[in-house]
Amino acid sequence: RKNVNAGVLKFVRNVRKLGRDDPRRVVHSLKVGLALTLVSLLQYCQPLYDSFGVSAMWAVITVVLVFEFSVGATLGKGVMRGLATLLAAALAVGAHHVANQSGRIAEPILLGFFVFLQAVVFTFARFYPTIKARYDYGSVIFILTFSFVSVSGYREDEIVKLAYQRLSTILIGGSACIIISILVSPVWAGEELHNLIASNIDKLAGFLQGFGHVYFEIDEDLVSNRNKSFLHGYKTVLNSKNSEDSLANFAGWEPGHGRFLFRHPWEQYLKIGARTRRCAYRIESLNCHLNPHAKPEIPSKIRETCTEMSLECGRALKELALSIRSMVKPLAAYVHIEKSKSAAENLNSLLQSSGLWGDNTDLLQFVPLATVVSLLIDVVNCTEEIAESV
Amino acid sequence: RKNVNAGVLKFVRNVRKLGRDDPRRVVHSLKVGLALTLVSLLQYCQPLYDSFGVSAMWAVITVVLVFEFSVGATLGKGVMRGLATLLAAALAVGAHHVANQSGRIAEPILLGFFVFLQAVVFTFARFYPTIKARYDYGSVIFILTFSFVSVSGYREDEIVKLAYQRLSTILIGGSACIIISILVSPVWAGEELHNLIASNIDKLAGFLQGFGHVYFEIDEDLVSNRNKSFLHGYKTVLNSKNSEDSLANFAGWEPGHGRFLFRHPWEQYLKIGARTRRCAYRIESLNCHLNPHAKPEIPSKIRETCTEMSLECGRALKELALSIRSMVKPLAAYVHIEKSKSAAENLNSLLQSSGLWGDNTDLLQFVPLATVVSLLIDVVNCTEEIAESV
Repeated sequence: RKNVNAGVLKFVRNVRKLGRDDPRRVVHSLKVGLALTLVSLLQYCQPLYDSFGVSAMWAVITVVLVFEFSVGATLGKGVMRGLATLLAAALAVGAHHVANQSGRIAEPILLGFFVFLQAVVFTFARFYPTIKARYDYGSVIFILTFSFVSVSGYREDEIVKLAYQRLSTILIGGSACIIISILVSPVWAGEELHNLIASNIDKLAGFLQGFGHVYFEIDEDLVSNRNKSFLHGYKTVLNSKNSEDSLANFAGWEPGHGRFLFRHPWEQYLKIGARTRRCAYRIESLNCHLNPHAKPEIPSKIRETCTEMSLECGRALKELALSIRSMVKPLAAYVHIEKSKSAAENLNSLLQSSGLWGDNTDLLQFVPLATVVSLLIDVVNCTEEIAESV
Repeated sequence: RKNVNAGVLKFVRNVRKLGRDDPRRVVHSLKVGLALTLVSLLQYCQPLYDSFGVSAMWAVITVVLVFEFSVGATLGKGVMRGLATLLAAALAVGAHHVANQSGRIAEPILLGFFVFLQAVVFTFARFYPTIKARYDYGSVIFILTFSFVSVSGYREDEIVKLAYQRLSTILIGGSACIIISILVSPVWAGEELHNLIASNIDKLAGFLQGFGHVYFEIDEDLVSNRNKSFLHGYKTVLNSKNSEDSLANFAGWEPGHGRFLFRHPWEQYLKIGARTRRCAYRIESLNCHLNPHAKPEIPSKIRETCTEMSLECGRALKELALSIRSMVKPLAAYVHIEKSKSAAENLNSLLQSSGLWGDNTDLLQFVPLATVVSLLIDVVNCTEEIAESV
């Protein structure tokens, strides 16, 4: 019993955390409930029911399948569903007409052939990269509607009326979704993408600033007291490609909103995202040098320059994230990049004047430091690239 | 006109390439067509039509929505669709009964409230991580069926019969999908996952073997003649997390097949995959040192040891991939790992005997080499980790 109680308690805590982390989730659930209830209640209006009959169900189905978290996804799915249904219904009516003319026996064979053909073609089309990325849902709906209408027409002989009913109910359901998702506290995919990119850059900046302190700090107590959560923040950046891609896809469906005009250059965000990820790969390699036992002795001059490099680079990334957020040119970031580059050059000349290490140079000791240094230089270069594309 | 022609030609070439790259795509399309045609033709059997009526359509819809590329995905979706429909229909009948008892006016209000409530609860549940990962589709179907049945019941007063019809047609459609996807040249998600993991490791191995030759080779002509495609192969490994996760999820639904028993430890594959990716991040960092202008002078002894390290590590990975493919213990891989580790130790002692570099040591020149060396050592460590979890 105690186990069960603990399990329930944990579940409740998780659920509450889910809602508190992003209150828009709760709002979204309420929005879906609202749309669904509205559309369901349409059924109770006698005149509407008389004109649509059983087809009125399609409004309910449309709401459940089309309503998505962001406006872009809802719009995209709604429009695709409408267009695919229209196209498929038209073709199915045509196919049905052709089959009808061909006599009693040939009719089911011809219809079966048509259904087979379109299913094969559109299923295969779903493997085509551009179609898969943008029109996957549309293809499914096409296959569905075509089979549905062409086969049901055989029985009911009211095929045009059926197709018309389906279309108008889908229109009702789809527009209910779109209107509610835009009017009631909308979640814009474009804004999500914008914030995701900025916060990813922020996470890298947090790592670099923390790294500068932790790796090059001599005072062990100071290091162990420090909050080390920043060291894991960057890990989510490594696998962010898919969510960036789908957000950019949805964002393409959205009309202008807030500070974003229609046809905002969303691809640019993907480019920045890719570069941020490249930077994150370097940081992942850096991170495995944070093991405290393996820390080498470092001459203080080199230590200072390295710390400066890491800190300045972190500051530059912070500025970049800020300038993405506020959508201005990242002038302040360039200053920090310049500083970190001059720190890198300083470091180079320090290394060339080999007097630092005394006579009996132990190259082995130098290996980890050299690695860190060169990865940091890579990170600086990546940062510069990110800055260029902002 | 010429432009259009070229576009069409390119499209046709792309489509043919799509089919040739993976002929199972064509087979899959044919399978979907077959299932859909079979189910559609069921409609033409008079006795069947009489007992199911319009509900027979649900078989068609089920086939279109449930049939997926791999057996696991089809099975999972089919089972979820069946169970969710059963559960939702039962609850909806209950809700309808309660509402019915409450009088003419309260009935639509109560039903509306029920629909609202379940939509909110299940939409929110879809944000819960475990539900999102495994039961997302089931939740959607639950909302759909509940709204559908509880609302339509208000009109038709044949709610139990309707629910029964929906269930049995979904069963027909679902079992047609599952049977065809298992019997006609099945695509097992488990096998896909197995091959994906092995080929990812292979790609890393290819990179390391190539890297050993290209980076440490002195003869420039030899280098430029070499096929460099291996240098990009590893890039797909960086973003493979999502496809691995979903394949493992689907694989969990599959019964035993071929060399895989039921309850094969699919999580183990995810672990190997994560380690492979960590190794790939290091390799990504290594890759940016392949710029030929920046190549430093390297004493020949160090070069030899490094080449050996890289090659042995690559061989070890090759062996690992092979042993995953053939499902035996990776004994040969351990030999190569040992060799590459002893090469690393060799290198360490070489570096300690600092006589190699002459007197005026230019540490700056040493930085890139040190980086490569330490990244290679990291790669060796990662390889060892991968070997442990195979």
